[in-house]
Amino acid sequence: MLVEGDHYRTIWADANRGCITIIDQTRLPHRFETVTLSSLDQAADAISNMQVRGAPLIGATGAYGLWLGLLEDSSDAALKQAAQQLISTRPTAVNLAWAIQRMVRTVSHLENDLRADAALSEADRICEEDVEHCRQIGLHGVHLISAIHRDNPGRPVNILTHCNAGWLATIDWGTATAPIYHAQLGDIPVHVWVDETRPRNQGAALTCFELGQQGVPHTLITDNAGGHLMQQGEVDMVITGTDRTASNGDVANKIGTYLKALAARDNDIPFYVALPSSTIDWDAESGSAIPIENRGSEEVTQVEGLCPNGEPTRVTISPENSGALNPAFDVTSAELVTALITERGVTEASKAGLLDLFPERRHE
Amino acid sequence: MLVEGDHYRTIWADANRGCITIIDQTRLPHRFETVTLSSLDQAADAISNMQVRGAPLIGATGAYGLWLGLLEDSSDAALKQAAQQLISTRPTAVNLAWAIQRMVRTVSHLENDLRADAALSEADRICEEDVEHCRQIGLHGVHLISAIHRDNPGRPVNILTHCNAGWLATIDWGTATAPIYHAQLGDIPVHVWVDETRPRNQGAALTCFELGQQGVPHTLITDNAGGHLMQQGEVDMVITGTDRTASNGDVANKIGTYLKALAARDNDIPFYVALPSSTIDWDAESGSAIPIENRGSEEVTQVEGLCPNGEPTRVTISPENSGALNPAFDVTSAELVTALITERGVTEASKAGLLDLFPERRHE
Repeated sequence: MLVEGDHYRTIWADANRGCITIIDQTRLPHRFETVTLSSLDQAADAISNMQVRGAPLIGATGAYGLWLGLLEDSSDAALKQAAQQLISTRPTAVNLAWAIQRMVRTVSHLENDLRADAALSEADRICEEDVEHCRQIGLHGVHLISAIHRDNPGRPVNILTHCNAGWLATIDWGTATAPIYHAQLGDIPVHVWVDETRPRNQGAALTCFELGQQGVPHTLITDNAGGHLMQQGEVDMVITGTDRTASNGDVANKIGTYLKALAARDNDIPFYVALPSSTIDWDAESGSAIPIENRGSEEVTQVEGLCPNGEPTRVTISPENSGALNPAFDVTSAELVTALITERGVTEASKAGLLDLFPERRHE
Repeated sequence: MLVEGDHYRTIWADANRGCITIIDQTRLPHRFETVTLSSLDQAADAISNMQVRGAPLIGATGAYGLWLGLLEDSSDAALKQAAQQLISTRPTAVNLAWAIQRMVRTVSHLENDLRADAALSEADRICEEDVEHCRQIGLHGVHLISAIHRDNPGRPVNILTHCNAGWLATIDWGTATAPIYHAQLGDIPVHVWVDETRPRNQGAALTCFELGQQGVPHTLITDNAGGHLMQQGEVDMVITGTDRTASNGDVANKIGTYLKALAARDNDIPFYVALPSSTIDWDAESGSAIPIENRGSEEVTQVEGLCPNGEPTRVTISPENSGALNPAFDVTSAELVTALITERGVTEASKAGLLDLFPERRHE
């Protein structure tokens, strides 16, 4: 999508130089900077410190990271070690394990000296598939927006989203944002309520940034405000992403998603979750099987932003001696989800609904 | 309550010097500073810019502000003008109008030269009553905590609270915190989950500060995290305050309260609201009659805190061109409230429940 009018993806490889380039998302929205990663360790660090984030993008970065590892050492032992190092960077999003396992399957039966090239091709393929899946999510999801617009002509459709499930969380298009960008392409007027999404403010920093660059009307709100806006009739629908979807349709997504799903139910507002099938954990029978990452307490006690003098800094908002807890995700049970929007269509958030779209999983 | 081991109230008058002193709550938690207010305008400004905040404390400051106004001009016209100026500073908390109307009733039939002294006495009385009401809220509410402790001996009772309904929001003791401080006095182990409460972070800045000064174990969390903690069994009860209580038991409180009430219901956790009767608006038949204040968008796009160099500053968290909306309160319907804790006891959140405790309101 667009940054200052130029088209970008979130990650791309340079085969000749043996490196990948990412957008440093910790610098947004105030600075747009790209970073070149030339080693397995650098790729793993970029995932841990959240220069890249978002389930699909983490998966893609892990895949390219394995390629970088194989350029360094393509032995069986190194392959195994690299896979473990990358998978352990973040626990909740399943795309990471999914992408790494797919990469290992692809290269492990090859001669060592063929592995790196095959890994690069497979990582590229993972990216292309993700772009196409997100585009398809947009094509399916836009019908949900246009239906609301048909019933309420003459005003924008008000969509609330949480965190960033935008193109910055994927390779392009995004998951939750793909239907929004397709609505824009189809001249359906939309307005997005953006939850700021403490503690890391991905809504304020990333979703506002990308919607602004794309020219989509939007308004930033605190995470506390969405329920009130729903009570006031100011929200027509909610669309979020998910970091891992259990096979029964429960979704683990950024902390606070559950509270918005409760408010949507209480106000009869549809609550949609958009996801490429790579986020489905078919082995997880329900959300309780999904590990929830606890991150550092300093993300809660401090807030990052731009000083009046233009310098990025972190300010401390709490007393020195008060501790903090920082669970990064919560689980929204399938019964709170109106429907899942996938690359194969819109379906009920249930085992039956998922198997309807992915019948090849019936006998696994 | 305690600041660095010394006992403080949030506001006190100096009759001889004709001024009042407040704690500047915009400087907490990093700096404890008191400010002397010597005029009606200064008192009104202190309410508008939230150097004082919290429904009961706003009421008390308004009362003293009227006294300061009468010291300047005790005519009928000036009295009326001062009352209007003070009432218009903030719209949602009803204590402000309640206190000002009570002051006007007390002084308006007096000779002009007797008005100021009578006003000072009445403002003092409002403060003393509030302290006693909050103490009584504590004595009634502590039984709810001790009952949970009896059923779960050997571990602290986990209480979640939103915003600051502590002693800093009142004159002393607080509303939501009064049962907590009484539990501490009674050696009932408690641990408080403190919602940071964006946009102004009164939880992080004020509730953490006062609980820390009082030695009450507590942990800061983002506003997004409470639902997850409830799902995990980490919350035994919720206690919040309220800025205005409708006569049917609906409560308007800091934005985000509604989301926590929904999560409490979804997880079968009791949700209590603590209030002195001065916050009851007997004329408001339901929450929909309560005006909700919209505050400036810069409270959302910027966060105040302490720089690494020790200087307080505001950092911008969103792109320059993204707008923001900032509703400051939301309404939690009575059906989500397990019970109201008042100075006269614990009662159902309903018209019948309130009239049981305040039978003198039956025929109004």
